[in-house]
Amino acid sequence: MAQGRKKKRVFPSDRKEGGRKGGREKREKRVRLSDDLLWGLHPVSEALSQGADRISEVIVAREHHGGKREEIIQLAKEAGVKLSFVDSLRLTGPDSATARHQGVIARMSSARLLAFSELVEKFSHLVQQGKKPRLLVLDSLQDPHNLGAAIRSAHGAGMDGVVITRERSAPLGGTAAKSAAGALAHMDICQVTNLADSLEELKKAGAWVFGALKERDSQSVYETDFNLPLCLVIGSEGKGIRPLIRKKCDLLVSIPMIGELDSLNSSVAAAVIMFETLRQRFSGGVS
Amino acid sequence: MAQGRKKKRVFPSDRKEGGRKGGREKREKRVRLSDDLLWGLHPVSEALSQGADRISEVIVAREHHGGKREEIIQLAKEAGVKLSFVDSLRLTGPDSATARHQGVIARMSSARLLAFSELVEKFSHLVQQGKKPRLLVLDSLQDPHNLGAAIRSAHGAGMDGVVITRERSAPLGGTAAKSAAGALAHMDICQVTNLADSLEELKKAGAWVFGALKERDSQSVYETDFNLPLCLVIGSEGKGIRPLIRKKCDLLVSIPMIGELDSLNSSVAAAVIMFETLRQRFSGGVS
Repeated sequence: MAQGRKKKRVFPSDRKEGGRKGGREKREKRVRLSDDLLWGLHPVSEALSQGADRISEVIVAREHHGGKREEIIQLAKEAGVKLSFVDSLRLTGPDSATARHQGVIARMSSARLLAFSELVEKFSHLVQQGKKPRLLVLDSLQDPHNLGAAIRSAHGAGMDGVVITRERSAPLGGTAAKSAAGALAHMDICQVTNLADSLEELKKAGAWVFGALKERDSQSVYETDFNLPLCLVIGSEGKGIRPLIRKKCDLLVSIPMIGELDSLNSSVAAAVIMFETLRQRFSGGVS
Repeated sequence: MAQGRKKKRVFPSDRKEGGRKGGREKREKRVRLSDDLLWGLHPVSEALSQGADRISEVIVAREHHGGKREEIIQLAKEAGVKLSFVDSLRLTGPDSATARHQGVIARMSSARLLAFSELVEKFSHLVQQGKKPRLLVLDSLQDPHNLGAAIRSAHGAGMDGVVITRERSAPLGGTAAKSAAGALAHMDICQVTNLADSLEELKKAGAWVFGALKERDSQSVYETDFNLPLCLVIGSEGKGIRPLIRKKCDLLVSIPMIGELDSLNSSVAAAVIMFETLRQRFSGGVS
């Protein structure tokens, strides 16, 4: 401890590593100021109170304290909004000098986020009407370009909603919104914490869960009948669908390919399969 | 002119605008040092002499002179490599301080670029064997992510080659290579200067030219028989296929869509159609 109290000279070039205090390395979270951020105790708690359906994440700095801060944490928990804690926060970029974050930042989504229960209700309702709703389920897609592109294609292919995992997924922020080219506002999007449980609930509502794999020995999507209430699960590019989620799938399918390489870009794979389900509806079944 | 000669004090913060000299605004081209660059008179002329099939562009600074420089320009012209002239050149990024470019930079492609005549010969040969080769033709795709993704999907869908426009296209450099995830090295790629003429030549070799449009009233790709020697033309995201190229198309097709938005990402649209051509081959025709 005595060592830690020795005042260390911090050179400007050392700034990136964050300051030291009391021997413990503090980690500073830097967030670039952008249009999809809200900051400050009052604006964030206001947004949470008025309905959290457009807030995709709340980031709270541990170095701040106070009743309002506790209230925000409570509101975010109640609304099921993703909460991230960091040691300290710093806004960067143009105009950041005048932005007083007071230790809280909320990331707004261009999408209106649906509660999972609402999505299940919608799905169930469509099934009861004799329709065959289709959901795109994105398991841990970490590239915001891919996330946005997949949502854009889902909209084009007329999917009834998109389910994304709350953790391990790219934020539904500026980059995803840009790739989605306006589609975020048109899709029912839902973030879930426990995807395995969520798939079980959707199955109870009548869904068939089909997982897309890269392995060429799984059933060809062109020989698969998609004319049923469907959850199409797409995994991340590197790792594919997580084993636990794979176990929840009723069927594993793949796109037959010719080239020597392993896989398509995950948003491209999602699009090819979603449009195949659409083609089958247009043509009245598997060819 | 007199005004222009007045010496202007240039503050460090003005550096981005480039220096002024003699009243004429000189434009400095800044190129970030990366693995896909070659620089310096000797390395670039050496690469051009040894076969230009991996050089996608040579950039020459006007402020430099000399016989070697003229020789490089001549070699690039002879090899049909894209030549760009700039007022002055500056390499940026780590390690750029030690890189002496001497006014010439060559952008290397991870792809082995085919001469157009070779591609026509390959196409023609396949047609004569009774096969139905398929080429992806990208008209002025300016986003390197899309360019790379489209080439990756072309490889996955077993296309026989990719034709890209030499001007107005994203470079086949690092970003495209990254998006292509290794596919550049596996595809026969060809850059052409006059796409309209090139399509005419491919038609003479037996190709049908189908252009993909966003307009929903063109023929559905699901009602189109792709079981023929094919050039599938995809346009840029903003502008689509240029009018002159559109006139060269034997048929205009589109992907039927449900969502309210205009179009898919161009690399996604390319993938959906390429995989539909593949599906038709697997299933023996239009469903």
